[in-house]
Amino acid sequence: MYSVNSVNRLIGEFNKLPGIGEKTAQRLSFFILKQPKEIALRLAESIKEVKEKVRYCSICANFTEEDPCRICQDKRRDRATLCVVEGPEDVSLLERMGKFKGVYHVLGGAISPLKGVRPEDINIKSLLKRIEPGEIREVILATDPNVEGETTAIYVSKLLFPFKIKITRLAYGLPAGGDLEFADEVTLWESLQGRREVHP
Amino acid sequence: MYSVNSVNRLIGEFNKLPGIGEKTAQRLSFFILKQPKEIALRLAESIKEVKEKVRYCSICANFTEEDPCRICQDKRRDRATLCVVEGPEDVSLLERMGKFKGVYHVLGGAISPLKGVRPEDINIKSLLKRIEPGEIREVILATDPNVEGETTAIYVSKLLFPFKIKITRLAYGLPAGGDLEFADEVTLWESLQGRREVHP
Repeated sequence: MYSVNSVNRLIGEFNKLPGIGEKTAQRLSFFILKQPKEIALRLAESIKEVKEKVRYCSICANFTEEDPCRICQDKRRDRATLCVVEGPEDVSLLERMGKFKGVYHVLGGAISPLKGVRPEDINIKSLLKRIEPGEIREVILATDPNVEGETTAIYVSKLLFPFKIKITRLAYGLPAGGDLEFADEVTLWESLQGRREVHP
Repeated sequence: MYSVNSVNRLIGEFNKLPGIGEKTAQRLSFFILKQPKEIALRLAESIKEVKEKVRYCSICANFTEEDPCRICQDKRRDRATLCVVEGPEDVSLLERMGKFKGVYHVLGGAISPLKGVRPEDINIKSLLKRIEPGEIREVILATDPNVEGETTAIYVSKLLFPFKIKITRLAYGLPAGGDLEFADEVTLWESLQGRREVHP
């Protein structure tokens, strides 16, 4: 508790952010206090700006300023290849790679009985609606490689099966730059099963 | 790089905060995006509020909303005991302890030839002015226990010497709850020199 009310409030607000404990919240607040006013206010303005401008794309449910989003609008992208991800962060990651030329569908979460997230809580209905017209040839299930992501991938793949389109899942395997020694057994087994022929 | 401009700007602003790398900045930004508008705007408002309301106390140079600050105004505090600290964070720490009943003087930094901080860059002049009237009996030098804090403490103590008041420095020693095994040699030596008689 700091003796200045407004400083306390700021510390409290920073403390609500994920991964920001009280010590860090205090450090950030004092940093803001020491900054010139214009510079400190830029963060405040940026927060306001995203909350005013950014919404969900009506097609893919990714964050966007214009609707449909730039990716859904882009005519050079392959609309027959749909990559299904859990969150907008995943789109950001895949786009940074700069190699995927298809389009996305953001589920906005993963099925998790433990966290109370049911299939109807994530964007599965809108996914099926996108598949119905028959233009999509492949759906890549790029949910996280954990229990919830797997559950979601299996659930979605079962719903997609009747459409008779190609359904794929991201490959499990060894991370690039890693060391065989540090791989866990599941990853090692998956990388063995998914082994590829080498053509020297 | 995320494809939405305002999101990019927010990530950039978070990235400028101390200890917030690009990954964390992105995580915080997406968190803000997913929050209800009113809740997300509270952080923005809090930043604005501190920048509007908070200034430096004209007596002790601590952050405050009212001038002089609450501590300097508080008549129950012992104005004869002055604790000299580097930053407002230190006042916050000492106040949390709730046991120090004197007043503070915030230097706003420590002397550091490497970082280009000279004695005239920190609030030493105003400290001497506070000592001049002769009401202060003890000055506690509570600068950090590192090279810069030590340098500052020695520099300030030399300036205070002619006033013939008590000048003290926080005790070096073993941290409470620590383990003797993990103490470095300097700390161990200091704790040995500063040993106190036990009265069982």
